[in-house]
Amino acid sequence: MQPKLTLVGAGPGDGDLITLKGIKALRQADVVLYDDLANDDLLDYAPEHAVKMYVGKRAGKASFTQEEINGLIVRLAQEHGHVVRLKGGDSYVFGRGYEESEYVRQYGISCEVVPGISSSIAVPASQGIPVTCRGVSESFWVITGTTRHGELSDDLRLAVQSKATVVVLMGMSKLAEICALYSEAGRGHLPMAVVQNGTRIDEQCVVGQVWKMPHLVAEQGVGAPAVIVIGEVVALHPAYLAECLRSLPVACQ
Amino acid sequence: MQPKLTLVGAGPGDGDLITLKGIKALRQADVVLYDDLANDDLLDYAPEHAVKMYVGKRAGKASFTQEEINGLIVRLAQEHGHVVRLKGGDSYVFGRGYEESEYVRQYGISCEVVPGISSSIAVPASQGIPVTCRGVSESFWVITGTTRHGELSDDLRLAVQSKATVVVLMGMSKLAEICALYSEAGRGHLPMAVVQNGTRIDEQCVVGQVWKMPHLVAEQGVGAPAVIVIGEVVALHPAYLAECLRSLPVACQ
Repeated sequence: MQPKLTLVGAGPGDGDLITLKGIKALRQADVVLYDDLANDDLLDYAPEHAVKMYVGKRAGKASFTQEEINGLIVRLAQEHGHVVRLKGGDSYVFGRGYEESEYVRQYGISCEVVPGISSSIAVPASQGIPVTCRGVSESFWVITGTTRHGELSDDLRLAVQSKATVVVLMGMSKLAEICALYSEAGRGHLPMAVVQNGTRIDEQCVVGQVWKMPHLVAEQGVGAPAVIVIGEVVALHPAYLAECLRSLPVACQ
Repeated sequence: MQPKLTLVGAGPGDGDLITLKGIKALRQADVVLYDDLANDDLLDYAPEHAVKMYVGKRAGKASFTQEEINGLIVRLAQEHGHVVRLKGGDSYVFGRGYEESEYVRQYGISCEVVPGISSSIAVPASQGIPVTCRGVSESFWVITGTTRHGELSDDLRLAVQSKATVVVLMGMSKLAEICALYSEAGRGHLPMAVVQNGTRIDEQCVVGQVWKMPHLVAEQGVGAPAVIVIGEVVALHPAYLAECLRSLPVACQ
């Protein structure tokens, strides 16, 4: 028995957005450690004998610390063999995948990374918003809304000045702060989208100009988990123009 | 017969990095229009009756213009039914997917987008480089090296000042220019990687400091198609430290 870790990205929510390579890894699993971000149906790819253990956060409370998860991976790999660590999206996009792979390597356990579809690209796409588009956007910048100190990344201060499509993950609790940064930079007019539960059946989307988004999001009852997209590409969304017209003073409509 | 277009991202190269949703779309295809960036084995998922047509670029020369491809999609969808447009990576990351979907919608043809694994994230990962990592990088910025006018995106001028992990796609012909921008901004010491044919069997990688990369890339014979990654996360690559030591004056080694 060879202890081994495979980090598998489960994709953004739709169960069919896992890769064939991810499915093959699950079929060879002796243990699956999974987060709540992953689609639970994916566990059915693992063999019946495999141990399946939930190690995510429920109601904002972590069931295990990162140190405990690292220790679990090592112990379960040594006891059972092949551990698959199944995470929503991609393990290397704010997924702490690198920390887990480095930790197990200290114990001589090999680690393979199977990339997943990142919600940063696929969730805007499911709303018809391309993160890049000729003549509109030549780049996209993906930023965390929750750093290890629980704060918005400082990188956003430079991002508000850029022409990049800006995508913020895990940023819903900082929505007002994000919009304020754009408004202070004189860019409160930019098109913005907030997409909750992207690629799932219960997907919901709000589009509008940055300055108005905290109001629109509250009005339409959209919350975490959600992907925030800011930039001219959002104007390509079919509902954007109608929302802007709705915001005009009645006399102009 | 219902004319329909599905844009399928084929992933970065490894044939198993297509999604289950992409495979299901291919199995339902009447026509597959494919680029050379996609793995040719993926065509085997399409039924035998399906028309398979290559519309990519060979030796830098496009076999069809974008306008011709748009027209082909419409004509073939009307004649045969379900057209799958298979592209390397993700159709909405510099893939002109939005242009194709908008064009066919004018003809009343519905369009679905199936996201693909983007090489911007998966190719660094296949070298053990996470685009984000706690304490090292809180964001990543993906930029095109070839805009529609054939130039490096202006966005890179701001990117060289940022703390983001910067990923440049289609940038190999501008490698010297990219490195010069970093050096002029006093950041020529940053760690950088160039990964050719990422996730394929013939993958090759060069790591080193930005200022030395044009020399290292030429020395090691690495060229397009390649992904360029610049930022502190590249120092996590196992070969990086050794390369830096090799660059020191002999007296310091």
